[in-house]
Amino acid sequence: MLQSELFTKTRKEAPKDEEAINAQLLARGGFARKMSAGVYTYLPLGFRVLQKIAQVVREEMNAIGGEELLFPALIAREHWEKSKRWGLRVGYEFKSPAGDEVGLGWTHEEASAFAAAQFIESYKDLPRAVYQIQNKFRAEARAKSGLLRGREFLMKDLYSFHADKADLDLYYQKVIAAYKKVFVRLNVPVRLTEAGGGAFTDEYTHEFQALSPAGEDTVYYCPKCDWSQNEEVAKVKDGERCPASTAGEPASSANEPASSVCGGTVAIARGIEVGNVFKLGTRYSEAFGVQFTDQTGSKKPAVMGSYGIGVSRLLATLVELHHDERGIIWPKEASPFAVHLLVLGAEDTAVEARGRKVYDSLTKRGVEVLYDDRAVSAGEKFGDADLLGISLRAVVSAKTGDKIELKRRDSKEVKLVTLEEAMEML
Amino acid sequence: MLQSELFTKTRKEAPKDEEAINAQLLARGGFARKMSAGVYTYLPLGFRVLQKIAQVVREEMNAIGGEELLFPALIAREHWEKSKRWGLRVGYEFKSPAGDEVGLGWTHEEASAFAAAQFIESYKDLPRAVYQIQNKFRAEARAKSGLLRGREFLMKDLYSFHADKADLDLYYQKVIAAYKKVFVRLNVPVRLTEAGGGAFTDEYTHEFQALSPAGEDTVYYCPKCDWSQNEEVAKVKDGERCPASTAGEPASSANEPASSVCGGTVAIARGIEVGNVFKLGTRYSEAFGVQFTDQTGSKKPAVMGSYGIGVSRLLATLVELHHDERGIIWPKEASPFAVHLLVLGAEDTAVEARGRKVYDSLTKRGVEVLYDDRAVSAGEKFGDADLLGISLRAVVSAKTGDKIELKRRDSKEVKLVTLEEAMEML
Repeated sequence: MLQSELFTKTRKEAPKDEEAINAQLLARGGFARKMSAGVYTYLPLGFRVLQKIAQVVREEMNAIGGEELLFPALIAREHWEKSKRWGLRVGYEFKSPAGDEVGLGWTHEEASAFAAAQFIESYKDLPRAVYQIQNKFRAEARAKSGLLRGREFLMKDLYSFHADKADLDLYYQKVIAAYKKVFVRLNVPVRLTEAGGGAFTDEYTHEFQALSPAGEDTVYYCPKCDWSQNEEVAKVKDGERCPASTAGEPASSANEPASSVCGGTVAIARGIEVGNVFKLGTRYSEAFGVQFTDQTGSKKPAVMGSYGIGVSRLLATLVELHHDERGIIWPKEASPFAVHLLVLGAEDTAVEARGRKVYDSLTKRGVEVLYDDRAVSAGEKFGDADLLGISLRAVVSAKTGDKIELKRRDSKEVKLVTLEEAMEML
Repeated sequence: MLQSELFTKTRKEAPKDEEAINAQLLARGGFARKMSAGVYTYLPLGFRVLQKIAQVVREEMNAIGGEELLFPALIAREHWEKSKRWGLRVGYEFKSPAGDEVGLGWTHEEASAFAAAQFIESYKDLPRAVYQIQNKFRAEARAKSGLLRGREFLMKDLYSFHADKADLDLYYQKVIAAYKKVFVRLNVPVRLTEAGGGAFTDEYTHEFQALSPAGEDTVYYCPKCDWSQNEEVAKVKDGERCPASTAGEPASSANEPASSVCGGTVAIARGIEVGNVFKLGTRYSEAFGVQFTDQTGSKKPAVMGSYGIGVSRLLATLVELHHDERGIIWPKEASPFAVHLLVLGAEDTAVEARGRKVYDSLTKRGVEVLYDDRAVSAGEKFGDADLLGISLRAVVSAKTGDKIELKRRDSKEVKLVTLEEAMEML
C-alpha cells in the first residue's frame, strides 16, 4: 500500500499518558492508540500485526486438531452460576435494560462445556478440541504496562475434551509442543514455567514466560537447565542450588545420585506470561453435563483442558523484546508488511518510475509492500522505516541505479540486488 | 477435514426454543447454537461461513480504499457523552468494579472520530476510510428472528472522512457500488431502499433490503423499476402508481412528461436490512475535533459517512433465502467447504482407497473438502449433505467406479467426471 494514503502518521514523541515502552513505540508508529485506560484501538498497522500473529497461532492450533469457532462475549448469569463463577469481580457483570444479567467473557470454559454437552455422547466422540481468537474483557483495577495488560485484549483460547486423564495428559504435551512452535516462529524465547493450579487441580499448571524487565510476573529459573517456577510455587530463592535433577524435573528424592543433579544456580527475572496450559479435570464437564458413554456402557464426565495464548499481549511482548533506540524490530512472521520500500529522490522521474516498477512487480507477486511515496526527506523516510520496524527495507534511489538496496531491520548489512533477485528472495 | 472428527453433529429435529427458519436449520446442521436469548456460539461450520462472508466483504472494502482496523468494544462514558449518546438504552451501559462507566460498542462513530482526530490535519490527509469486522452489542428487549437480530452480532462498519460534502457524495456512491458487488457475490438480491436520516441528516439514507418473509422491515417498492422506500418515508401505499419518473428517482414535478413515468404499481414486502449507508455530516467530527486545514489555511471539520453490513445477519439471511425442505443451500462464496465428499460402501477397501485418494488429491491442491468418512448409511450421508448444504457434493462408490459423481446443491443434475476433471474444475 501507499504510505501517503495510510490512515496513520508517525510521531516523534510518545503520548504523555503512556509509560510502557510497548505502548510508547506502538503509539509513535501509529500501531495502536489508547481510547481509555487499558483499552486500545488497533490501527491499520497494528491490526496487520495482530492478524499475522493470529495466523501463526491458528496454523499451529489446526495442526493439533483444533477446530476454530466463536463463542459469545455476552454470557448469561445462569451459565456463570453453574460453574460458581458469578460475582468474582474478575470480569464485567451487569444488568441489561430488559433486566437480564450478563457477564462479559473473560474466559470460556462455561461456553465450551455448554457447547460440548450438545455433541459429545460416546467415547467415539472423543477427544475433541475447539478454539477461538476473540476479545476478552477483564475489570482490571489498574490498567498499566500498556498493551501487556488491558481491560480488553485479544486471546486465543483452546478447550479440549477427553475420555480419561491419560488422554488429557497426552494432549497437554501436544499443546505444549505446539505453543513452543508458535513462540519460535514469532521469535519469543520462553521458559516453560511451573505454576499453581489454583482451584482447578492439585497438579502444577504451566505458564510460558517471556523473560523481560517489562514483565509483571516473577520467575525463578535455572540458566543451566529447563527448570523454571513462578513465585507462587517456587520453594527455592535466587542464588540457591537448582532443584532439578534431570532437565527441568525437580529432584524426586535427596538420595538421587549426584551425577543427575543439574548443578546450576537459581536466577530470578521478570516474566511476561504469553501463554498458559491448564488441566481442568471434570469440574466444568460435570457442571454442564458433558457426559459420554464409555466402552462398558457407563456414563462418565469428559476430562477437560484449557490453553491460552495472549495474541495482543504477544504484539506488545514483541515490541518489548525487539526494539532499539530508533524503533521496533518486527520478526518476519509478525511484520505488518514483508517489505518497506523507500524511493529516495522521486522528483527524478526515472527514479520514480523505477520505484513504481519495483512496487508493482512485488505487489503483483503477492508480496505485501508498504511503499513510502511521501514527499518528505530521505532522513525522515529512514527514520520512519526504523520506527515502524518492518522486517525488510528496500531502497531505490539514483545511487542504487538499476538495483535495489536491501537491509533487514535486525541487521546492519546492506546488499544490492536486482529486481529479479529480490522477487526470488521474497 | 474428516467428518468423523467434526466437533458437531447434525440433528433431525430443531431445538424447541427456535422458531425462525434460519435458527432451526443452523442448529440442526451444527452451524450455530443459542447460549441465551439473542446470543449464539458460531460452531466450526458456522464460523467457516462467517469467515467466507467476511472475506468477501473485506475484499470489496479494500478495493475502495478501506483500511482494516479494530476498535474496542469497551467505550468509556466520556466518549459517548461527547456525541450525546450516553443513556440512550440502545446498548449495554454499566459501571465497572473500579467505578469507571462503560458502554459496549453498538456502533463506532465515536471511536472512529476519536482515532481520526489524531491523524487528520490537512486537506492532503483526506479522504480516508477505515473499517472493522467486529462483534457489536445491542440491548434488544425481545431477541427473536434467530440470528437475524441478536444481542451480539458480527458487523462490518466503515467510516469515511472527507474535505467536503461533494467528496462524501462521491464516496457514498462508491460504497453503494461496492455493497452491490458484495451482495451479488453472495447471491443476496437486494433493493436499495430510501430511508429516513434520523437525527443525522435531512437527506435520505439508504438501506439494502433483501426481500424475504422473514424480514422485520416493511418495504414499498416497484417491481418495474428501482424505486424502493421503507415504511418510515414512503408516501404511497401498495397498489398505487409508482412515484418514480426515471429509474428509481421520485418524480420531481407533476408536470413531468408522461413518457418518463415508470408506470409500475407499488408493491409491499417484508425486508431484511443487510446493509445501510449514512451521510453523517460534521456531527462527530465536530464533537471529536476531526479538523483539517484547507487550501486557504482555514480550519474545517471533516465530513463523515458511515456504512454497515451485517455479517452474521447475512449468514442468517442466506439460510432464509436459500433452503429447501431438506436443508440449506449455501452459495459458492459462502459455503463452509468447497466440496462435500461422500464415500459410500467404504467397507469395500477398493472404494475406501479411491475415496481417500480423491480426498488427498483435492486437499493437496488446496481445495477445502469435508470428507464424510463416518460408518453410517448412504441415506444418512445424503441426508446430512443436503442439510449442511455445501455447494458441491462429490460421491465415490462401487457404482461410480473410477469416476466421481458431482452434484451442485442447487441443481438436480449429476455428472460423472474423472479425478483429473474434478481437480481442473475446482
